[in-house]
Amino acid sequence: MASDQAPTEATTADTYEEFEDRVERISNVSNAAGVLRWDQEVVMPEGGTPARAQQLSTLSSISHELLTAEETGELLADLESDSLPEERAAIVREVRRRYDRETSVPGELVEEISETTANAHPTWKRARETDDFEEFAPVLEKLVELKREYAEYVDPDADPYAVLFADYEPYIDLETAERVLDRLRDRLVPLIDAIEDADADLETAAFAGTFDDDDQEALARDVLDSLGYDWDRGRLDTAPHPFSSGTQFDARVTTRFDEEDLLGSITSTIHEFGHANYTLGLPDDGYGTPLGEARDLSVHESQSRLWENHVGRSRPFWEHFLPVARERFPELEDVTPEEAYESANQVYDDNLIRVEADELTYHLHIVIRFEIERALISGDLEVSEVPQVWNDKYEEYLGVRPDTDADGCLQDIHWSHGSFGYFPTYSLGSVLAAQLYAAAEDELGELDDDVRNGEFDELNGWLRENVHQHGKRYTTPELIERATGDGFTADYFLEYVESKYGELYDLEEY
Amino acid sequence: MASDQAPTEATTADTYEEFEDRVERISNVSNAAGVLRWDQEVVMPEGGTPARAQQLSTLSSISHELLTAEETGELLADLESDSLPEERAAIVREVRRRYDRETSVPGELVEEISETTANAHPTWKRARETDDFEEFAPVLEKLVELKREYAEYVDPDADPYAVLFADYEPYIDLETAERVLDRLRDRLVPLIDAIEDADADLETAAFAGTFDDDDQEALARDVLDSLGYDWDRGRLDTAPHPFSSGTQFDARVTTRFDEEDLLGSITSTIHEFGHANYTLGLPDDGYGTPLGEARDLSVHESQSRLWENHVGRSRPFWEHFLPVARERFPELEDVTPEEAYESANQVYDDNLIRVEADELTYHLHIVIRFEIERALISGDLEVSEVPQVWNDKYEEYLGVRPDTDADGCLQDIHWSHGSFGYFPTYSLGSVLAAQLYAAAEDELGELDDDVRNGEFDELNGWLRENVHQHGKRYTTPELIERATGDGFTADYFLEYVESKYGELYDLEEY
Repeated sequence: MASDQAPTEATTADTYEEFEDRVERISNVSNAAGVLRWDQEVVMPEGGTPARAQQLSTLSSISHELLTAEETGELLADLESDSLPEERAAIVREVRRRYDRETSVPGELVEEISETTANAHPTWKRARETDDFEEFAPVLEKLVELKREYAEYVDPDADPYAVLFADYEPYIDLETAERVLDRLRDRLVPLIDAIEDADADLETAAFAGTFDDDDQEALARDVLDSLGYDWDRGRLDTAPHPFSSGTQFDARVTTRFDEEDLLGSITSTIHEFGHANYTLGLPDDGYGTPLGEARDLSVHESQSRLWENHVGRSRPFWEHFLPVARERFPELEDVTPEEAYESANQVYDDNLIRVEADELTYHLHIVIRFEIERALISGDLEVSEVPQVWNDKYEEYLGVRPDTDADGCLQDIHWSHGSFGYFPTYSLGSVLAAQLYAAAEDELGELDDDVRNGEFDELNGWLRENVHQHGKRYTTPELIERATGDGFTADYFLEYVESKYGELYDLEEY
Repeated sequence: MASDQAPTEATTADTYEEFEDRVERISNVSNAAGVLRWDQEVVMPEGGTPARAQQLSTLSSISHELLTAEETGELLADLESDSLPEERAAIVREVRRRYDRETSVPGELVEEISETTANAHPTWKRARETDDFEEFAPVLEKLVELKREYAEYVDPDADPYAVLFADYEPYIDLETAERVLDRLRDRLVPLIDAIEDADADLETAAFAGTFDDDDQEALARDVLDSLGYDWDRGRLDTAPHPFSSGTQFDARVTTRFDEEDLLGSITSTIHEFGHANYTLGLPDDGYGTPLGEARDLSVHESQSRLWENHVGRSRPFWEHFLPVARERFPELEDVTPEEAYESANQVYDDNLIRVEADELTYHLHIVIRFEIERALISGDLEVSEVPQVWNDKYEEYLGVRPDTDADGCLQDIHWSHGSFGYFPTYSLGSVLAAQLYAAAEDELGELDDDVRNGEFDELNGWLRENVHQHGKRYTTPELIERATGDGFTADYFLEYVESKYGELYDLEEY
């Protein structure tokens, strides 16, 4: 299209329509792939793997080709040369970002990363099973190298780790993330130390026992009922690694059941509800464009953590929910809400495993990964040094030292996916959850009574209005500022945990 | 590519590779759409409909555009100008056929048909519910007109009904189909009359009673186990309208349970097993091309009917399966295999509904639809005359006259889909099933003992070798000729039903 003349209104409208058609098409292909992945995790028979891999690879190529086609670039340039209404400008901004990223990296490199990670996964699995870091090391080296190369293509002038981080969290800059993570480390280490020293007599065994899987499933449905999950637009299934996925028309939850871990299935279900509930709050009429898509990983995680921690690990929640749980499990008859609350908030000072961590130590697990992967990408750390550094940091921050790499630096799947820069978003999500919950209470008044009465409409209405309905209309900092009146900060999270755990463990200095 | 010089071997190889990539891509998109449709029918929450419709429409457009792109035409022309090995030639033949069809019809007409059928479906549903043919008539008229137009585009010189029929059954010509259907009508009408007159004292109530849905599901799994369904590449679920779908890596079965119709769920499960079992027998290395795809509707239906009727409605099957069924339903204790066999083969002389029909009257239901839709498309019959003609034909062929159009010409969904030419493939499938079963017994010897012992490997091995493994390598007539040594004929089917029902109803003249 000629760009040497100002576009008339009519051509802009036509151009925009063509652009939106293309964007919707890309979105539909991605959402179709989402259905295929849900199917693969939840219902697909094992034999289906080879065909599914090909189907997903084809959809991914088509979506990539549609996005990076010359026409997309021309449409973007045309639209950017004109002044657009706010909503359209936001769509163009988001597509431009993805377009620039995907066009800057050569297809062969993308393919090499994809093949390397496909092979890295079984290698990592074997290495973890046999506690043999040496086996995983060459693959990890290769992935670090490829991801560095990738970052170099995207932006040769930027800190490569910042480039990778932006794949998961495009609008919070790395300095902000680092400042937040540093504050978590500096304030949580003494808090956890104080808890260890406090020698408090908390109830830890309220949920000890064996709980039938089918009854646990019924209770998971009770949890979702109670929180207001919309079953007409969702469903609950089991998956080895719980997740939620879908669109505002159909956002599904998965969970898992372990007969010896009733609490784990409840909190995991609430966590996934938070994700799905965000998706279900995206505007219907935005479907197919970024306006109908969730903001990135930190915001998504803020929604799951808000429900899991601020609601699900609160005292009033257990006052509300324990009677529900007793209906399914009469053996909980003698447990008091306070005991349930205490058991749900036990701080494990000797735990090595991130996914089993509590609300406090969790972030030290993340900080350790952040520091290590950042040093790996910058070249300050060799892959061969990872186990030693990992173990040293665990000793320093958490006071425990893994006996094996399987329980140490081999425990997480993420690096085998080449996902460097992903981990921080977990902590940023928790931090943002606290900031949002505080803002909601600031506006609505304390929510304890609501939670105690199992009334979540007000809280959810606030989240819908201030977070969900906006999709990707605002950047993350804009969204946070509008919702909370404040910049992104760890203040609220620190205040929340210090007050909660200070009271729970009767800590004088908190 | 230049076509004025003979292609060298190298360029042919490159051209072929490019062609195959394109074909595989189209196939993967279609298979992805298949997963989305399975999901929609089986697990999708109702709220998901609007997004799913968009996802499917996008995948369908992409697949259409890939197929009808100029590049596809050029690749086809290049490859056709050279002599190709048999397998590649078969792939080219199949893609050429689809390419010619899809490029011959203007996109606007395809879209108009698609929109009209989308709206026709709720109109038909309402018309059937209120028994109001007048409401459906204008839509049906529109669809007849659009489909005539469609046929005119595909081949202006051909009988338009033959063109439509070829969408479902491309390689059996309409004359052959008509000859077969005429013979069915001419021979089944007197056979059914003889059965009515025979006044035989058959057991009809072996499966009378109420049967728990969960136990029926367990029994459906027993059925699939017993027939050798490969659970590593499949699964069983429920759906309001049972179907099977998937690929050779993952071919799933659905069924339905009605507490008052145990026999129906068993036969429906066996029927769908037959479809899925065909799909699972397609060659793995053909995945992505027509060599790994099932031949068309008649052959597919031959596989479901072979298992449903020749196996599942046979005397030895009930000798084998009744003890299995008794494990789930002790109330069947007093039923004998002979009584089960008789109940599974009752001929309903007063039934108006196709989907409830037995093995004999079924084909008269089909013949009536075939004769009516053919006359509609040729213009020999007006839409307004359909109810009258329908009822007259039911009286003439089946000796029953519907009281309502809801139980008459409004009973089937197919015309609301614009699917004129689809119905005959149901009967052709039954006819082919008999021909294949006879050929299998000719080679393997009588299979009754195998069936009685629940041993299906030999039969299935024969089907794998003679039908499944070939995918679309041969045209349907070639496939039939190679598998049975005979052209497609109703002889075997007529011999089968006349012998079976002659014995069952003790008919002197049979």
